[in-house]
Amino acid sequence: MTYCVGLKLDRGLVFMSDTRTNAGVDNISVFRKMFLWEREGERSITLMTAGNLATTQAVVSLLNERAKPAEERGAPSILEAPSMFQVAKLVGETLREVIAEQTGRVGPQADGPFSATLILGGQVRGGEPRLFLVYPEGNFVEASLDTPFFQIGETKYGKPILVRAYDPSMSFEEAVKLLMLSFDSTVKANLSVGLPLDLHLYTAESFRTGMIRRIERDDAFYEMISSGWGEALRAAFDRLPAYSLD
Amino acid sequence: MTYCVGLKLDRGLVFMSDTRTNAGVDNISVFRKMFLWEREGERSITLMTAGNLATTQAVVSLLNERAKPAEERGAPSILEAPSMFQVAKLVGETLREVIAEQTGRVGPQADGPFSATLILGGQVRGGEPRLFLVYPEGNFVEASLDTPFFQIGETKYGKPILVRAYDPSMSFEEAVKLLMLSFDSTVKANLSVGLPLDLHLYTAESFRTGMIRRIERDDAFYEMISSGWGEALRAAFDRLPAYSLD
Repeated sequence: MTYCVGLKLDRGLVFMSDTRTNAGVDNISVFRKMFLWEREGERSITLMTAGNLATTQAVVSLLNERAKPAEERGAPSILEAPSMFQVAKLVGETLREVIAEQTGRVGPQADGPFSATLILGGQVRGGEPRLFLVYPEGNFVEASLDTPFFQIGETKYGKPILVRAYDPSMSFEEAVKLLMLSFDSTVKANLSVGLPLDLHLYTAESFRTGMIRRIERDDAFYEMISSGWGEALRAAFDRLPAYSLD
Repeated sequence: MTYCVGLKLDRGLVFMSDTRTNAGVDNISVFRKMFLWEREGERSITLMTAGNLATTQAVVSLLNERAKPAEERGAPSILEAPSMFQVAKLVGETLREVIAEQTGRVGPQADGPFSATLILGGQVRGGEPRLFLVYPEGNFVEASLDTPFFQIGETKYGKPILVRAYDPSMSFEEAVKLLMLSFDSTVKANLSVGLPLDLHLYTAESFRTGMIRRIERDDAFYEMISSGWGEALRAAFDRLPAYSLD
């Protein structure tokens, strides 16, 4: 299993993914479920993957191949597409193509053991930072004010705290804390989601890869947040009045 | 969808179920997803159901028929079984029988559109209060100190708070508050789970149906807990230190 969250803030985009499934991909800027592309000063693209590993690896490999100028095979590249919308379209088409090759199934039948779902975010000069959820059918939806974040993988345990505490004006520091709490709820409930976590903070209008960090199993802040949250929840619970049986 | 929780406490058993799917069953002590049997002074049995409505109705109808002395068809009755373990065995067999009749599938293949899962709890004189989770295959597991509660239906959103705040020594009043928070997290995330909620509090060694109550949509305590919890979570979140990007 997997858990990835992409969050849209006023000041940029926040991406966090777990790493428990090992991808064998070897790439200069690859975290295991988080893949980064940039053209400094012009665009930054982040992709997070959940689902069948063969499928997601093939998608990333194809996107990589087509992004290399040397290849020049005529296939459109996510480094050339004129907008994040066009990038999302390319990523969706690549995903659909891979699933169709492996299963012979396209469109509404694409769900199944070879399926995958992706979170895509970034910014291309001339446009806003944008965040997309790409379905196995190849289509996608965009984050909006009403839906300011996307989750893929094991999404349910970590959703209540996101719904309750998200605020588009929050700082990166607060957002990382929020995502760590969401991941902690998931890790505590589902053994197949685990640390270390990968983090990418994209600052709006920077058009370059932002801060990337791997949060290791023994990360002091994560441990403090995890145990502190348990106590804070219990304290919050105790402060609410008990039900009256009368 | 459905959400039901059974909780084992030192002082007894707590059952809560939502009601969003309408069951057409008409029975003297039936809530829509919660079914009660008693022999005052001797036993109290509570059953909660999730899954295919035709299946769960058939199971309850069969259990009811066989519990009527007038029928005397030789089939064993949950009002006669000598222990909660034997009651669980009867319920499991009845569930397996219904699924097998409807689908021709038994055992490990019983999962599917006609499937159902049950929470069963109660006490028979001579034994402890016991709580079981009954699978569509007809087998079951019992709540223990390590797993002091069971959930069926849409279980994930409401699990983190149960894990964090449950305490076997808590009062019924605290337990109802805890379950309301768990239900509130679920209701907020999944439209197909909804109020009103049904509640049964079984007091250990009472051998009779305990307090039953329907928590309606406009229940003042539920509304207060729901909004108070949002604020309490935000306050708890704010009190934790933010991540440092340095």
